[in-house]
Amino acid sequence: MEQNQHQLELCVRDYECDLQGVVNNAVYLNYLEHARHEYLRQKGLDFAALASEGINLMVIRAEIDYRGSLRSGDSFIVQSRYEQKSRLKFLFKQEIVREGESKALLRAEITGTAVNKAGKPFLPPELALLLDEKE
Amino acid sequence: MEQNQHQLELCVRDYECDLQGVVNNAVYLNYLEHARHEYLRQKGLDFAALASEGINLMVIRAEIDYRGSLRSGDSFIVQSRYEQKSRLKFLFKQEIVREGESKALLRAEITGTAVNKAGKPFLPPELALLLDEKE
Amino acid sequence: MEQNQHQLELCVRDYECDLQGVVNNAVYLNYLEHARHEYLRQKGLDFAALASEGINLMVIRAEIDYRGSLRSGDSFIVQSRYEQKSRLKFLFKQEIVREGESKALLRAEITGTAVNKAGKPFLPPELALLLDEKE
Amino acid sequence: MEQNQHQLELCVRDYECDLQGVVNNAVYLNYLEHARHEYLRQKGLDFAALASEGINLMVIRAEIDYRGSLRSGDSFIVQSRYEQKSRLKFLFKQEIVREGESKALLRAEITGTAVNKAGKPFLPPELALLLDEKE
Repeated sequence: MEQNQHQLELCVRDYECDLQGVVNNAVYLNYLEHARHEYLRQKGLDFAALASEGINLMVIRAEIDYRGSLRSGDSFIVQSRYEQKSRLKFLFKQEIVREGESKALLRAEITGTAVNKAGKPFLPPELALLLDEKE
Repeated sequence: MEQNQHQLELCVRDYECDLQGVVNNAVYLNYLEHARHEYLRQKGLDFAALASEGINLMVIRAEIDYRGSLRSGDSFIVQSRYEQKSRLKFLFKQEIVREGESKALLRAEITGTAVNKAGKPFLPPELALLLDEKE
Repeated sequence: MEQNQHQLELCVRDYECDLQGVVNNAVYLNYLEHARHEYLRQKGLDFAALASEGINLMVIRAEIDYRGSLRSGDSFIVQSRYEQKSRLKFLFKQEIVREGESKALLRAEITGTAVNKAGKPFLPPELALLLDEKE
Repeated sequence: MEQNQHQLELCVRDYECDLQGVVNNAVYLNYLEHARHEYLRQKGLDFAALASEGINLMVIRAEIDYRGSLRSGDSFIVQSRYEQKSRLKFLFKQEIVREGESKALLRAEITGTAVNKAGKPFLPPELALLLDEKE
């Protein structure tokens, strides 16, 4: 896999399904966040440790296209790709693909930034690690 | 209020806040969904009853701009405006405004459709009630 | 209402229902917690403010009897009664009653304690306010 | 492992932590439910399939002792043990143990029953599979 990509395999938990019998639309944001945090953790960036130092990564825009539904018993992969969007913004392009399928059932673009202890926007330099060409 | 608008007042529940001490980004989708369903219910459309008849309203696209954060103790209003986007798609333009403020801290455009028992897209005619000029 | 009692009226939100079409068993703990925190807030005790000072109220035991199920569209009342159980433990006896019914569909006993900045158990003296005979 | 036991390894997801920085008390019920459903699935019992046939497994009592807290980054094991409590009731004794520790940080006893299409309590005979001495 390329350096700026990450994959996480998960399975649907029954409590994540709503009365329509499918995973509720808000739960996909939980999946996407968890995948981003695992990706960061793998690169040495710990979301909770940053927060306790007063450095808060935050989502500023989310665009999500829902093209299918996950159901009880489904396994799936969350694919995440990191891009630096500007000096102060980063972008995760994420897809959710059901196991055994090739077409994404959800596509998302999540734009984020970070705020430091002084409340000023800034990007932790470690985020650049997600772009490194070699590990 | 105009016919195709709805307001719902809510307050943050502490369990909705995450380790950063603010409402988690996914929870806003819960708020937005709840506001839409209350709006529909007020017009006589019951999401759960429709689901049990095999008619499933579903979100197909969500665009959310996060411009601020709700915290423990905050009260806020979810404003929703309904538009018919095309023969098979509807659109809710939604905003979240903290009590006592005028500027929205979140803006969303939620596009939806519905699928009938046969699995075919169609819009329940009752949705037109959200557009009626007089009640 | 007696001094050491509190009532909170809520309604079911559709995303709280699971694939059985009823409120998921874990969600009732959210309702119970929210009612306790509102009760504390009404007495001048702010759960989030305490946490930011390093004073963490925490549940150490929960006993819950589920005798019925809430569904989409239901309104209900959470009744909470506070008791001091020992020098270091407090107890909330809580019930959930559907609107228009008299019998509780859920009964819970939630035992808690608090830990201070030094990690030692202690009860914030303000909790005694929940027992005061006169306000 | 004995026949009537099951283990599931999970890790904390950051959105499951609340403003105290630890996993919220209600989320443990999600973990316990997910472990029970995986256990049932492994024995050939599908919670969602049963629900769609009108057979609803339900929790009627939960007793939970919280002795410690999970935090961001923690991995843990949910251990579940099945017992038939009476003709119409089953019991799961469950424990949560943080990776690398031996003492449970949470112990729970979850009593359940099932209701058939006619709304009458009954236990699906397949549950006996959780007690079989040989597979």
